Amino acid sequence: MENIITSKDNPVIKLYQKLSSSKKERLQYGLFVLEGMRIVEDAVKENSGLSHLIMTKQAYEKFGETFFQADLRNTKIIVISNELGRKIALTDSTQGVFAICRMPSESTVKFKENGRYIVLYGLQDPGNVGMIIRTADALGIDGVILSGSCELYSPKVVRSTMGSIFRMRTAVENDTERLFAILKENGITASASVIDRDAEKITECDFKGSHAIFIGNEGSGLPGDIALRCDRRITIPMSGTINSLNAAMACGILMWELKKQT
Amino acid sequence: MENIITSKDNPVIKLYQKLSSSKKERLQYGLFVLEGMRIVEDAVKENSGLSHLIMTKQAYEKFGETFFQADLRNTKIIVISNELGRKIALTDSTQGVFAICRMPSESTVKFKENGRYIVLYGLQDPGNVGMIIRTADALGIDGVILSGSCELYSPKVVRSTMGSIFRMRTAVENDTERLFAILKENGITASASVIDRDAEKITECDFKGSHAIFIGNEGSGLPGDIALRCDRRITIPMSGTINSLNAAMACGILMWELKKQT
Repeated sequence: MENIITSKDNPVIKLYQKLSSSKKERLQYGLFVLEGMRIVEDAVKENSGLSHLIMTKQAYEKFGETFFQADLRNTKIIVISNELGRKIALTDSTQGVFAICRMPSESTVKFKENGRYIVLYGLQDPGNVGMIIRTADALGIDGVILSGSCELYSPKVVRSTMGSIFRMRTAVENDTERLFAILKENGITASASVIDRDAEKITECDFKGSHAIFIGNEGSGLPGDIALRCDRRITIPMSGTINSLNAAMACGILMWELKKQT
Repeated sequence: MENIITSKDNPVIKLYQKLSSSKKERLQYGLFVLEGMRIVEDAVKENSGLSHLIMTKQAYEKFGETFFQADLRNTKIIVISNELGRKIALTDSTQGVFAICRMPSESTVKFKENGRYIVLYGLQDPGNVGMIIRTADALGIDGVILSGSCELYSPKVVRSTMGSIFRMRTAVENDTERLFAILKENGITASASVIDRDAEKITECDFKGSHAIFIGNEGSGLPGDIALRCDRRITIPMSGTINSLNAAMACGILMWELKKQT
């Protein structure tokens, strides 16, 4: 076994903690953090550019072997004391498995014929963003684009994707003009999802060709001007208490209907 | 304003804290707790049997008037110090509005022609159960039945329903034999939702008549014998990464398809 690191002043541990707490540092270094056996395994399996794999002594003894078979030539493996593991953990019941991972340097979304995309416009809840990426992965959506939403690589978003962050194609485009220009260039029809009985019902929508559905902020929905700039306005018909669909759930139902016509 | 209570030893405050932390006490008293302006307002609006409305001094000054117009003849209103409010709060950013609420004494589910029901069989995550109840309310599902699942009236479930706990018809039936007997008596077709490519695809299912869909545990799904006891096994066809749909999201899509054929 390597030397066991016990000090918080170790440079890798210091880096891990900076990346763990600061969006600024994450974007500056182009790195983000992972915690937990399952998500670190997913990162290894999807070949997602792990720069450091950090394990507590206990985790190294328990899980180390799993990683020896993987191709980790570009990954530095570090063993830390169990106590230090508890200090850097963000979850209460940590497994003692951590990693530092490189962000893709640009958008991984590929535009294609009959593509199905989701635009998260102003979504602020990391749990919702993570769950949407996870669901998009399950349903086979071709890309999730974030615009003015919470940070894609925050520990909370990454954790709630349950590993789908490494499989789902994603992009961040915070400039609204550029966002609409990209959609236009690629021949993508933009649909604004709104709560409005007069909007087109998703059960009656034609989704031929390439489509992107815009999902708005959890509390306030899509801004009116954005809904009007989209090619059409669509809605989920509800027979129960209106307004009570959570943003991630509404997005899940929209993706489901969008995929059914592929 | 009433006398301001400052002591944790006040009998109502003691009761609130017991109910807040212990399932046993909740079931024994048939009472549960609410925290937050929105959910307490929902309880008042839906006439849901509030036994006590507890507000901090600050909350009383800010929100008190909202409640004076409501019919609260059977509700005792109590004002507590802001400090005591922070002590009994379960959330970090409490609004200082709390309530003690009576549980319905029996199932509120009514079985009817073409009814649409969900059975949560062994669901353990309160956030999932709450989100399912909320989505069921939005989509107009006729009843949610819990069997061997987490407690319906735990503070976490109640909070994640976002008020739908007062609108959605619910029942708890932990005895599997009785559960199947009730479904049979009421002429309800039971469908087990499973992850199995050979099961009937929900996009091709016929949902004529009354239907109940069984949703299993987050990690292990429905037990095999339960899936076999159901009248049929249904599945959500996925084109992406299988297994990555969260239980609440899968249930949302199932409820959506179930309702479309009403």
